[in-house]
Amino acid sequence: MPKRVDHDQRRREIVAALWRIASTGGLEAVSLGEVAVEAGVSKGMVQHYFGSKQEMLRYATGYLRARVEQRISPQPPTLRGLLLALLPVDEDSRTESLVANAFFFRALNDPALAARFREGNTMLRDTLAARITDEIPALDPTEEADTLLALLSGLTNALLLGHHNAAAATALLDHHLVRIGAHRNSPP
Amino acid sequence: MPKRVDHDQRRREIVAALWRIASTGGLEAVSLGEVAVEAGVSKGMVQHYFGSKQEMLRYATGYLRARVEQRISPQPPTLRGLLLALLPVDEDSRTESLVANAFFFRALNDPALAARFREGNTMLRDTLAARITDEIPALDPTEEADTLLALLSGLTNALLLGHHNAAAATALLDHHLVRIGAHRNSPP
Repeated sequence: MPKRVDHDQRRREIVAALWRIASTGGLEAVSLGEVAVEAGVSKGMVQHYFGSKQEMLRYATGYLRARVEQRISPQPPTLRGLLLALLPVDEDSRTESLVANAFFFRALNDPALAARFREGNTMLRDTLAARITDEIPALDPTEEADTLLALLSGLTNALLLGHHNAAAATALLDHHLVRIGAHRNSPP
Repeated sequence: MPKRVDHDQRRREIVAALWRIASTGGLEAVSLGEVAVEAGVSKGMVQHYFGSKQEMLRYATGYLRARVEQRISPQPPTLRGLLLALLPVDEDSRTESLVANAFFFRALNDPALAARFREGNTMLRDTLAARITDEIPALDPTEEADTLLALLSGLTNALLLGHHNAAAATALLDHHLVRIGAHRNSPP
């Protein structure tokens, strides 16, 4: 079904344009018109795929989730591997984190979006907790996963602002992993 | 000099209005006109105190810094007391965190604002590091302070989104403090 593939491709191109806008200007800067200009298509074309800004944003959160899931799935299944895959240390993951930040701010005043963030957080927490149960069974997996997610979120902010570079953020993460005993049980 | 006091008071009222707008709509929602309406004064009055949106935002970052410094100064000078004072667990500190978040997003594309964030981060890190040196001298104070700041920033995000309530966030922080040995040397 080549037509179907074209539609998916076009949809992704439109969302990629939305991402570029949101990663620099936030979601306030996103409109059907602006996205059309950025994507190099007509506004009518954007409206053909997305009836409203709201619908376009909802699709973009699903895309963000898929990117994060993809990011953590092909990793070697170690706790450290998962965490490093989630740190924004390259251009792609930096853009993802910037877009997530833009959505984060909107989620503070949008219960439906906040619920999606909570789902994503629960998915990540369960994934980390499963690794903790395997690698460091003496620890409380939920408590440690929550702590690691908070640390990861703070290090992401610090990386985005340039408080730390990738090496420094990785060293802080490793310092914590050594402390909780993760490195004794899994290869780095 | 009563006139001087009035000016300061008026300036603070205008910034308080800016805060209410920024904490819900982000800095995009801030304009001299919107702030005037929210503050219940004329746009001309706002312009009398602040020549531009840029100037008003710069003043607001200074005010944010002063609030944070005030927040951590009257605390009992323990590491735990400092950290708890920085968690957004009441309405005032929640609004501060929301405004800081709004500035954070803008700082990603504004080098001058990013520099102010870095100064604030260094100030907080040095304050925490001094407490660590006193309470847990065996640790590397800078490394531990950086880790605590990342944890604090992540817990702040989790509190704002409702992933954790105040009790759960405090418990995670205490779990970390017990682990690094802070509670052995300072009263809770």
